[in-house]
Amino acid sequence: MATSATGMKYKDRDDLLLMVFSPETNIAGLFTKSATAAVSVHLTKKVIENNQGRCLLVNAGNANAFTGSKGDASAQSVLSMLSTISGLPLNTIMMASTGVIGEPLDAELICAKLETLWKSKGTANWYQAASAIKTTDTFEKASIQIIEYGDKTVHIAAIAKGSGMIAPDMATMLGFIVTDAKIEKSLLQKMLFETNKRSFNAITVDSDTSTSDMVLLAATGASKVTIQSNSENADKFKLALQQVMRDLAHQIVKDGEGASKFITVNVSGAINDGSAHIIAKSIANSPLVKTAIAGEDANWGRIVMAVGKAGQPALRDKLTIRIGGVLVAENGQKSDNYADSMIDSHMKSTDILIEVDLQMRDGVATVWTCDLTHGYITINTDYRS
Amino acid sequence: MATSATGMKYKDRDDLLLMVFSPETNIAGLFTKSATAAVSVHLTKKVIENNQGRCLLVNAGNANAFTGSKGDASAQSVLSMLSTISGLPLNTIMMASTGVIGEPLDAELICAKLETLWKSKGTANWYQAASAIKTTDTFEKASIQIIEYGDKTVHIAAIAKGSGMIAPDMATMLGFIVTDAKIEKSLLQKMLFETNKRSFNAITVDSDTSTSDMVLLAATGASKVTIQSNSENADKFKLALQQVMRDLAHQIVKDGEGASKFITVNVSGAINDGSAHIIAKSIANSPLVKTAIAGEDANWGRIVMAVGKAGQPALRDKLTIRIGGVLVAENGQKSDNYADSMIDSHMKSTDILIEVDLQMRDGVATVWTCDLTHGYITINTDYRS
Repeated sequence: MATSATGMKYKDRDDLLLMVFSPETNIAGLFTKSATAAVSVHLTKKVIENNQGRCLLVNAGNANAFTGSKGDASAQSVLSMLSTISGLPLNTIMMASTGVIGEPLDAELICAKLETLWKSKGTANWYQAASAIKTTDTFEKASIQIIEYGDKTVHIAAIAKGSGMIAPDMATMLGFIVTDAKIEKSLLQKMLFETNKRSFNAITVDSDTSTSDMVLLAATGASKVTIQSNSENADKFKLALQQVMRDLAHQIVKDGEGASKFITVNVSGAINDGSAHIIAKSIANSPLVKTAIAGEDANWGRIVMAVGKAGQPALRDKLTIRIGGVLVAENGQKSDNYADSMIDSHMKSTDILIEVDLQMRDGVATVWTCDLTHGYITINTDYRS
Repeated sequence: MATSATGMKYKDRDDLLLMVFSPETNIAGLFTKSATAAVSVHLTKKVIENNQGRCLLVNAGNANAFTGSKGDASAQSVLSMLSTISGLPLNTIMMASTGVIGEPLDAELICAKLETLWKSKGTANWYQAASAIKTTDTFEKASIQIIEYGDKTVHIAAIAKGSGMIAPDMATMLGFIVTDAKIEKSLLQKMLFETNKRSFNAITVDSDTSTSDMVLLAATGASKVTIQSNSENADKFKLALQQVMRDLAHQIVKDGEGASKFITVNVSGAINDGSAHIIAKSIANSPLVKTAIAGEDANWGRIVMAVGKAGQPALRDKLTIRIGGVLVAENGQKSDNYADSMIDSHMKSTDILIEVDLQMRDGVATVWTCDLTHGYITINTDYRS
């Protein structure tokens, strides 16, 4: 890896990241479902489909989204130059861009840095890589897992960025995961898809889905450990991968724009998992639930409202609501033994737990979100992101 | 009409409204689709279905929603007493409640006022009625239309309340419309359903749908003007009704919690009207679009994002975006002739117009909303509504 500073939007910090992979590397990817996806999403998707990815260039500060033919040309000129410098074929180079939407990407600022960037590959560590891809993020997001396989060791290292416009429909803004395990492409893609469901796809900051969401998982094989499908090794790897992805997803929520609280919403007893997910998202995206929690007010009536508006099967008299483990509502009303004072200290803490049991069937889902504060308004009325 | 003060939540103001209708009156109604609808919604819905409504009691400050068997009993004891005092059968009395969710309704406070309330019927005017049903509303919402039919005159008078938890799925928090036209129940219901689609169902303040939404339309027949279906008179009446309902719906958005701007979102060229409505709602509910407008920033990239996340057919290169009538984006990028300075003064005004043309087919929709400001956060972190 290597990083560099173009000065495009941010001053005195790196905003360009290069990752180079060995020829044996397999790479899986997930991308935004947005109908107005960015140029980089389309380009990288194609490289992943053909499993030819050899290097990745990430720039922060400009998403190169909705920039039409000019944006397409900008991306192409950057990729062409990188191809010439590196000697890698054009169709092996991936790109990711994050930042403001609708402003043409200044290719020259990036091109001016490509030669030194390529020559300095191997100089950047994971912290520097995580730092170079930030936009409104207030801290670097990284995670690592080490798995022992007999006398061999496999690593999973990952970075991500994202703080606002976070309601990933496929992946988060940007997430890059690298392992030295040897895993064939189809298994890699399957594992990424499955672990993504319970990590990036289960978080929301503000219900707004980005045009640039992308998560890539690269397996280099350098550890000489081969992971076969339906093996004990695969289960062990998938568990570690799930940990890394969930860790990153939680870091994004904790760095949600203006966030002061980390909120876990557990829904159980729904008619199926999909229904539980819709209800959990309805609670996690409700501005009234999120502002109540920001105000440290156990206003559980707003949770009832959010369950009601989700458009999913629910029965008033079966629904139970717990906050911080305390039974708040049951039998269609406030629980007889409940008083607000019982959860006062929980509401004042930074980790809030909301549990809703519909008691219909066995559908479950967990979604993580943050509260909605004055900080979110300040950031988004003042900053063109 | 008559109003009274129970002191239940608000001090020094009326919070109880009684409306009494003549026996000839037909009443149509629309109700929230929430799966956790309030007691009053279920009770009033039944009266409307049987077309037996003779009087309506509205209380503000407590929604009597998710209050289980206790809430059912509270509502019943209020209705029983009102039935005894008025001599009207139980199944002719309608109720509407608005305010905090989940707190049992104190029936005694209401019952203590019922006798004087009934005796004073005819003393309250429309302004007093609109005032008695307010919660976080900062002004009274009322509208009137007068229609000439030869030498006869028909009136439509209406009141509404609502400021937060506004994304009506059927009607707004509370809306009551009365006309002296003579209209049979089925035509009345049809007209209410159709005009509601382009008024209350086309507004959103915060994407949160209430448990208590209800709009009633009563036709007393006192004007001696009969409206038949498929007549010129009916067209004239429906147009006036649409005006009244749209006027009220706009008043609710203008009084949206913390709102500083009134925003009109016009979507055209979608594959059908339903698709256009989903895209318009996606823009109108996006916290990033709403905060950008609060910051008077023409951050149109966020409009692109909101179109993209709507999950509806859209083609990047066909999409055009206009703000304040100025062409901002076309051909998949910023318009060549556009500069932010061209819409600076529009962004600083209080009425913002966003027009999105997908140029695919002829689906159109209009949705009205407000911006998202520090005021919304302050109101909803501090107030248990």
